[in-house]
Amino acid sequence: MTKKKYVYTFGGGRTEGEGAMKNLLGGKGANLAEMANLGLPVPPGFTVSTECCVDYFKNGNQLPDGVEAEINRALKHIENSMGMTFGSPENPLLVSCRSGARSSMPGMMETVLNVGLSTRTIPGLIAKTGNERFVYDAYRRLIMMYSDVVMEKAEGIEPAEGQAIRRQLDGIMDEVKAAKGYQYDTDLTVADLKALCDVFKAKIKEVLGKEFPDDPMDQLYGGIGAVLKSWNGKKAVAYRRIEGIPDDWGTAVNVQSMVFGNMGDTSATGVAFTRDPATGDNKFYGEWLINAQGEDVVAGTRTPNPLNNDTCNEQNKHLKSMEELYPALYQELFAIRNTLEAHYHDMLDIEFTIQEGKLFMLQCRVGKRTGTAALTMAMDMLDEKLIDEKTAVLRVMPNQLDELLHPILDVKAEEEAMLRGEVIAKGLPAGPGGAVGKICFTCDEVVAAAAKGEKVILVREETNPEDVEGMRGASGILTARGGMTSHAALVCRGWGKCCIVGAGSLIIDEKNGILKVGGKVLKRGDMLSLNGSRGYVYEGALPTMDSSENKKLQRFMALADKFRRLGVRANADTPEDARVARAFGAEGIGLFRTEHMFYGKNSEKPLFYLRKMILANSTAERENALAELYPYMKASVKDTLLAMQGLPVTFRLLDPPLHEFVPEESIKRRELADALGITPDEIDKRAETLHENNPMMGHRGVRLGITYPEISRAQMKAILEAAVEVGNCVPEIMVPVTCDVSELKLQKEILAEVAREVAETHGRDKVSYKLGSMIEIPRAALLADQMAEVAEFFSFGTNDLTQMTFGFSRDDIGAFLPDYLCKKLLDSDPFQTIDTKGVGRLIEFAVEGGRKTRPELKIGICGEQGGEPKSVAFCHAAGLNYVSCSPFRVPLARLAAAQAAIQQG
Amino acid sequence: MTKKKYVYTFGGGRTEGEGAMKNLLGGKGANLAEMANLGLPVPPGFTVSTECCVDYFKNGNQLPDGVEAEINRALKHIENSMGMTFGSPENPLLVSCRSGARSSMPGMMETVLNVGLSTRTIPGLIAKTGNERFVYDAYRRLIMMYSDVVMEKAEGIEPAEGQAIRRQLDGIMDEVKAAKGYQYDTDLTVADLKALCDVFKAKIKEVLGKEFPDDPMDQLYGGIGAVLKSWNGKKAVAYRRIEGIPDDWGTAVNVQSMVFGNMGDTSATGVAFTRDPATGDNKFYGEWLINAQGEDVVAGTRTPNPLNNDTCNEQNKHLKSMEELYPALYQELFAIRNTLEAHYHDMLDIEFTIQEGKLFMLQCRVGKRTGTAALTMAMDMLDEKLIDEKTAVLRVMPNQLDELLHPILDVKAEEEAMLRGEVIAKGLPAGPGGAVGKICFTCDEVVAAAAKGEKVILVREETNPEDVEGMRGASGILTARGGMTSHAALVCRGWGKCCIVGAGSLIIDEKNGILKVGGKVLKRGDMLSLNGSRGYVYEGALPTMDSSENKKLQRFMALADKFRRLGVRANADTPEDARVARAFGAEGIGLFRTEHMFYGKNSEKPLFYLRKMILANSTAERENALAELYPYMKASVKDTLLAMQGLPVTFRLLDPPLHEFVPEESIKRRELADALGITPDEIDKRAETLHENNPMMGHRGVRLGITYPEISRAQMKAILEAAVEVGNCVPEIMVPVTCDVSELKLQKEILAEVAREVAETHGRDKVSYKLGSMIEIPRAALLADQMAEVAEFFSFGTNDLTQMTFGFSRDDIGAFLPDYLCKKLLDSDPFQTIDTKGVGRLIEFAVEGGRKTRPELKIGICGEQGGEPKSVAFCHAAGLNYVSCSPFRVPLARLAAAQAAIQQG
Repeated sequence: MTKKKYVYTFGGGRTEGEGAMKNLLGGKGANLAEMANLGLPVPPGFTVSTECCVDYFKNGNQLPDGVEAEINRALKHIENSMGMTFGSPENPLLVSCRSGARSSMPGMMETVLNVGLSTRTIPGLIAKTGNERFVYDAYRRLIMMYSDVVMEKAEGIEPAEGQAIRRQLDGIMDEVKAAKGYQYDTDLTVADLKALCDVFKAKIKEVLGKEFPDDPMDQLYGGIGAVLKSWNGKKAVAYRRIEGIPDDWGTAVNVQSMVFGNMGDTSATGVAFTRDPATGDNKFYGEWLINAQGEDVVAGTRTPNPLNNDTCNEQNKHLKSMEELYPALYQELFAIRNTLEAHYHDMLDIEFTIQEGKLFMLQCRVGKRTGTAALTMAMDMLDEKLIDEKTAVLRVMPNQLDELLHPILDVKAEEEAMLRGEVIAKGLPAGPGGAVGKICFTCDEVVAAAAKGEKVILVREETNPEDVEGMRGASGILTARGGMTSHAALVCRGWGKCCIVGAGSLIIDEKNGILKVGGKVLKRGDMLSLNGSRGYVYEGALPTMDSSENKKLQRFMALADKFRRLGVRANADTPEDARVARAFGAEGIGLFRTEHMFYGKNSEKPLFYLRKMILANSTAERENALAELYPYMKASVKDTLLAMQGLPVTFRLLDPPLHEFVPEESIKRRELADALGITPDEIDKRAETLHENNPMMGHRGVRLGITYPEISRAQMKAILEAAVEVGNCVPEIMVPVTCDVSELKLQKEILAEVAREVAETHGRDKVSYKLGSMIEIPRAALLADQMAEVAEFFSFGTNDLTQMTFGFSRDDIGAFLPDYLCKKLLDSDPFQTIDTKGVGRLIEFAVEGGRKTRPELKIGICGEQGGEPKSVAFCHAAGLNYVSCSPFRVPLARLAAAQAAIQQG
Repeated sequence: MTKKKYVYTFGGGRTEGEGAMKNLLGGKGANLAEMANLGLPVPPGFTVSTECCVDYFKNGNQLPDGVEAEINRALKHIENSMGMTFGSPENPLLVSCRSGARSSMPGMMETVLNVGLSTRTIPGLIAKTGNERFVYDAYRRLIMMYSDVVMEKAEGIEPAEGQAIRRQLDGIMDEVKAAKGYQYDTDLTVADLKALCDVFKAKIKEVLGKEFPDDPMDQLYGGIGAVLKSWNGKKAVAYRRIEGIPDDWGTAVNVQSMVFGNMGDTSATGVAFTRDPATGDNKFYGEWLINAQGEDVVAGTRTPNPLNNDTCNEQNKHLKSMEELYPALYQELFAIRNTLEAHYHDMLDIEFTIQEGKLFMLQCRVGKRTGTAALTMAMDMLDEKLIDEKTAVLRVMPNQLDELLHPILDVKAEEEAMLRGEVIAKGLPAGPGGAVGKICFTCDEVVAAAAKGEKVILVREETNPEDVEGMRGASGILTARGGMTSHAALVCRGWGKCCIVGAGSLIIDEKNGILKVGGKVLKRGDMLSLNGSRGYVYEGALPTMDSSENKKLQRFMALADKFRRLGVRANADTPEDARVARAFGAEGIGLFRTEHMFYGKNSEKPLFYLRKMILANSTAERENALAELYPYMKASVKDTLLAMQGLPVTFRLLDPPLHEFVPEESIKRRELADALGITPDEIDKRAETLHENNPMMGHRGVRLGITYPEISRAQMKAILEAAVEVGNCVPEIMVPVTCDVSELKLQKEILAEVAREVAETHGRDKVSYKLGSMIEIPRAALLADQMAEVAEFFSFGTNDLTQMTFGFSRDDIGAFLPDYLCKKLLDSDPFQTIDTKGVGRLIEFAVEGGRKTRPELKIGICGEQGGEPKSVAFCHAAGLNYVSCSPFRVPLARLAAAQAAIQQG
């Protein structure tokens, strides 16, 4: 094997990488190379590859052999193309060290800027820039950032509450400002900054026991090491867990010559999106700050200026745009924007800096977007012929549809609230849709409330990466500070969560649990309503509504359906469910649970007869109770068949163990006993008989139909009679919990007999139906070739199949599954995403076996994973005919199926 | 396809079948053909094939097309070779109709004799035999048998208690005898019999509403149909269920010309075994009755004469032997015996009839035998060079070893009891070994007592096929009547169950629950002891002992081991178990359950510390409790390793869910709380936390070791330290309930660390061990290729694997598995015999996957099926390295493994 190359230069006329090398160079590194290749003004630098990161950890947190030599060679390249020298007292080069993984992890890893500034190089930089204040300000930033990132975090030091070095240095600076009566950092004088730097260094020595490094090379390698280590930092690991990013990808490190946006009024820094990331509108969208470094924009501590007219809004309309202030530079940037979109065929998120009137591109990557924006851009770019149909379909993630389907504030109610003046604050529309909930001020509160099933709005000054868990649990996020590229905005956009940032009029008193705004005082727990698409905050709880009837969405879904080969059905047990499912595009019902009629509203009567049936002491008594239950069973089937208007419906025979229907509490048992005219003792005894040690593997499903054929018979009759009366439909009868074809044969005999009876009663030659089997017991999957001798269709019950295949009781996994996920023993919760390795293997086995016996066998899935995109992709690959999921997830499944068809071919 | 041939003639110079055609002609038919081919005197006849039976049922209980023509042709053949004509008034042929399945089902199906006797043919037969009494007696027998078998049972009529036609006819005959003052049936005169026949026919008309058929052809087809139908009679179905005979084999019907053993003193009938079926001694062994029909011998109503000197015993020594009375005929029979043994190379069970001085062979089949006899004959025939070694090994069924290993009455105690005169009765030694138990008089009593775990002796006048269930539950059977070929004797011999028949001195008063014998009065529930090998009955309970140290058995087992390729280990958790296992030939321990130390004797202390560990509130508390538990864990391991003297031992880490160890009753919880110095409330709370809905799929096995690595660590340390201290052994550590290789990796890390510590403590470079995995979760079997990346051995836990594969909770199958077996949905209980179709497929999958990754992977099984012969054969076929079973079943497994090797090659 030839020696690995770990370091790739870019810019300055020698770019060794390209955009396609994202896995090796990370997203940022690859895009810097790509931009350089496009001839855009990228400050020269080099990328230390992700492979180096992986090898660094394998090598006991040491750079692999040879990397230093490569870095030094690449550094020389920067020096040559910049005409500056790293560590030179006369013409010192400064560099930044930034992380860059394959997949963007905003704010989760570390960055060090101004590396190379030291007592030795300061004079040269002052001489060169003529700006002593700038240099010392840069130095003070370096000290603060470096001590935090490299000397504390990267060393694994976990300071006590409030004792973080960064916090202590901030404290010192605040004291100085207070003592001198300064309001802004910019008020600090050169002398102040010089003194501060000395105090900082002394404090660092005292707290961390080490000198702040004065050798630029030490700084550089410290910075590179710290970025590498931040890949395994707590924040980054937690983020990867949520986003499903593998731990072994590693991050690249981008070392790039510094350009300064804070060298005066002809310097600036900015962030932009080539189109609006919230709405998807084809407008160049960005924010910039004059005389600032990049971190100032992202931090959200100053409200940034709009990039152009299109970006003006309530918060920034008083601030000058770049279009206005520096039209030539703006035009240059706008041309770059067009170049990039034409090249990437996608919306990009770019970072730029203007150093003394010269524009530099620091970053470009495919931009995160809301679901709404993803949809709009996909359809617009298709119309613009920038992308083809398949690409358009791939541009919206199935989970983003969630957002498009999720509620918004009821339009009329909101209008009236506006007219009544109930808009208590306005902010930036950072995450779409509507959210209504109780005010919470901390993430802990959110987590606690969410656990209770309460809807909450997280209200914060601003958010930071530590808040991610809490943000997840909230229905909406509202911050007083920050712009559209602030942490809260970035995260919420990614998640499609309702979010308003920079609502500056909020006064948040977290300690006392009070939110003051416009003369009103709201308390913790009071209700708020947010319109995240507009940025409006309302007092109280407004009603919400569906965001259906979206024409663009309908066009998009029709496009998706054009490529989709998997059918999509819904799991629905009521006419209402059935109607919702059809509205969402379901092509049938894949799972109608006959037992559903015993739960929820209007269930008293049928439940009573069911209990009577369960408590029967003989077949005759059981048959009597079934006769009383019969009209309810038939009506329930009939209503759903009518609602589905001829679309196929799969009826599953009774599944749960009978004891589930016997009341637990003695008072309920007494009532039941009275109603049935028996003693509570008899009920207790029967309940005792029905008790099971492992009910999940007990007397349920077809096993009930084996011991009590009369139960199967009654259900089958109800289904067939209902179908005959409705007409024009062929009911699919599905037998659950089967493990052997002999069970199906027995049920088939009963069904054939019932069918003859029903045909006779209705004066017909025959009645049509299909008989199929759930495949949810491993043995049924293993013997699928035999099952298909009788079954005309299969439906995978992946909930049970997962339980048996793993030996995981879904009710009991709480005791160990979190450990399994946390210790990375399993990639994901197999009850959410099909375990393709184990459960998936059984499914493939069953598909192969079933089709061998019966090539035309129709196969579907009706477990909860049927609406989860990865699982849908698996079902497509496994050759299933359809997936069935909850009505609300039908559009997701349709899109996931289309994408699977496009991606897998 | 050419037309099926359904009917095969034999004897009379045209034999169309042969011995090898057992599947088609049934055992009896094939052997009649074989005997005819050997030139033995077989009355001519024909066999209606088993295929005809199968088609008969398929054809709605009608003979398939063309069969009648074939039967009529075959009947013509009998007529021609006998020179008689069926239905002829002058020279009428009579025939018998007998069942004959592939596998013997003694007494389970029906027979009709004397078919062809009618008002039309009686005069001719009288004229021909000159014996009017014989003819009317034969007619009376035909009427009684035919009305019972053909007109009632075959028609599916289920008469009320005591109202069966046979019973009613018996009653009429008894009345006549009483009225006339007769003692025996033979006292009835011709006139009596004539009158009886008329009364019988009138009664039949009255009760069954049909005339007794007077047309011989009607009788013939009625008889054939009744025999066919008896294949699906209740008795036959129940017997097949017990013996595991498939329902779709069907029975053949043998129609054979009648020969009569009841035509006077030169006529006789008899049953013989070519060797002693109880002891296996090489002695011609048989019984005969002069002037009798075959049913009289089998029914056991008369004590039969001995065939020869070798057959004399206490009960029959006063009766004349055939050897003595008819030496020439005896020599002819003896020569046939030798011909048959030389031809069949096995011990045969034969039936013969002498009609007026001429010997006829009616049946010959491989004889049932006790385990002792099987062993003796196998080794004797090997020594006689009648069979080769492989055949000898195949001659003893593994389950027969049970009997050779089962207890016998303690030899000294029995001698003393004899000297004290406690032998209260003597009978025929019909089933070997010793049995001690309470007296029961009915099968219901036996079933009830057996359900309570009590040992009982079933005491009966005689047994009949309806008693089979009760006989199964009894430790021993004692009957007052019947010979060595009576029902009780046949059944018990087949089962290897202790049995004494024909103990004529017993006076049984079932109604009052009293057994009178030799002046003593015993009551229901009193203790009896039987020596079934000697036929002696003792009052009270004698001690029992092992029948080990059997030299013949040792030679046989050594022979078996010569062919065996599967290793055999034992499941053993204590040094005592380990010693027993070694004595039975176990080559190691395949399953040592570490949790066993918490059950049974001497478990108080370790159980207390275990509970302390379970109730710990922190890792530190848990580690403290584990430290206290540690010496017990280590000692338990060490003792077993010492007992196994260097043979391999597989230690399974803690398997059951922890809540199993928390006491249930509140008083016990209070005691525990006091001992631990905590409140009972805390225990309740912890128990509540530990409660699981489906504990079988809950927090157990390796899942405990994932959440509490300290538990794995402590166990691993105990095992490794014990092994180092014992020396000269490589402990095998087995991880239970795994579903992913990641679990094994984590356990391996802990083990490696523990091993380093132990090595260091004991001043060694390293300590040796193997790490393996149970394969008991379907997913582990599916991903076996990955599991084998870490596991150095696999052991199939077929109990759990069966639970998960079927979704059958073993604790809860009582509610439905009996229905599954009864309705024939499953062939056998998968917890007793490996389900080769489903579970077996997973096993094969895992073997293939595991060996692909690690060709030298050692694979065993340690579920309860590991000692069940069919399952052992499967394990051999699947390529396992060893089976592990309970110590007592080790010899069975060794033999089953040898037979699998011989049969499968």
